[in-house]
Amino acid sequence: MTHQIGLILYPELTQLDLTGPFEVFSRMPDSNVHLIWKTLDPVTSDTGLRLLPTTLMKECPQLEVICVPGGPGQIDFMDDQEFLGFLRKQAKKAKLVTSVCTGSLLLGAAGLLEGYKASTYWASTEFLVGYGAHYQKGRVVKDRNRITGGGVTAGIDFALTAVAELADERTAKMIQLMIEYNPDPPFNSGHPDVADPEIVAALRAIMKERIAARKVQARNRPRSDT
Amino acid sequence: MTHQIGLILYPELTQLDLTGPFEVFSRMPDSNVHLIWKTLDPVTSDTGLRLLPTTLMKECPQLEVICVPGGPGQIDFMDDQEFLGFLRKQAKKAKLVTSVCTGSLLLGAAGLLEGYKASTYWASTEFLVGYGAHYQKGRVVKDRNRITGGGVTAGIDFALTAVAELADERTAKMIQLMIEYNPDPPFNSGHPDVADPEIVAALRAIMKERIAARKVQARNRPRSDT
Repeated sequence: MTHQIGLILYPELTQLDLTGPFEVFSRMPDSNVHLIWKTLDPVTSDTGLRLLPTTLMKECPQLEVICVPGGPGQIDFMDDQEFLGFLRKQAKKAKLVTSVCTGSLLLGAAGLLEGYKASTYWASTEFLVGYGAHYQKGRVVKDRNRITGGGVTAGIDFALTAVAELADERTAKMIQLMIEYNPDPPFNSGHPDVADPEIVAALRAIMKERIAARKVQARNRPRSDT
Repeated sequence: MTHQIGLILYPELTQLDLTGPFEVFSRMPDSNVHLIWKTLDPVTSDTGLRLLPTTLMKECPQLEVICVPGGPGQIDFMDDQEFLGFLRKQAKKAKLVTSVCTGSLLLGAAGLLEGYKASTYWASTEFLVGYGAHYQKGRVVKDRNRITGGGVTAGIDFALTAVAELADERTAKMIQLMIEYNPDPPFNSGHPDVADPEIVAALRAIMKERIAARKVQARNRPRSDT
């Protein structure tokens, strides 16, 4: 049986939220990894990388794993019924319902995290709680069949955890060795718990501004679903 | 002054070798990250991800950083004079000449690592030595203006190191926090030094077979440069 894995693409996603797990899942034997979007046109990440989808949302087969990456673009889909409806439909029969980074907010908006323990990007925890999820700090948080990752690079830790569940631990370890995932960051600045408080404060301020600007943008944009 | 950063695309590259550094470099202020290839058609990674180039090799401006990612496709370009000539030309004036994973073998084939200490993918060290480089184990190895990364995920460590050099350490730390790079792999299997010997042996055997198959394939393919 082929493992049908689906990663959602959308404009202004953070590409590494998706490309990290893609690298891991596509190395799992007997896997078919779909990059799903509404059209097959290139999708541009928040940093300008253009990726090509493989599978139309409306033609996607039932997935064993549905995974939603994060990125600033998610704010534009928080009430997109085609997108959220797709997540709800797939989640009914998927073995694992998952996210990386702020992808959890889209799972939340679809009502799929209510009453679940879940993780998200370090700067977005307050939004997650708004969807009835119980925020739990962690790079990979599992509650029943929900697996939610922390920010961006946590997608690699998440996907290796998921492979151990879908295949077995040996397969996950083999993939970890294939991608030489023996990380050694040159600095110790990857989470507010360890980064310089000055840097955390500066980044929080930048993000607050960006979110405010995006909210104004989203309010002024014609709705596609009305 | 804009930082002109160039990452090379080619068929059957390992996409995470490129997408990891792309995420980091594109978040550096005043950076322009080029994805360079011979055409602007989609380029397909070894695992099937289709990426769109941004910049033609023949139209690429002088780069401050040239970076070659790895992947099994590199074997097809080891005597491609357009590709290697591009690397040599850029390397003359680039501030940093860099690679991730087996991208180092392409730098080597271009004669750019002779007499330099360099790293590469853990399974490819013997090939690197063939180009006159002095292999040094490490996720990020710097010798003068050459910075070479270890396998696949080492590209993230490499790019953060490069940003500290191009901008400053604070900028690199800020980006590390943005991408929540506080890794916590679920297993300890990311390098032969730490992985189960049985898994290392199994993966070495698989790779040996794949390399042999690719060499036969390459021999039987009509040469595009003759």
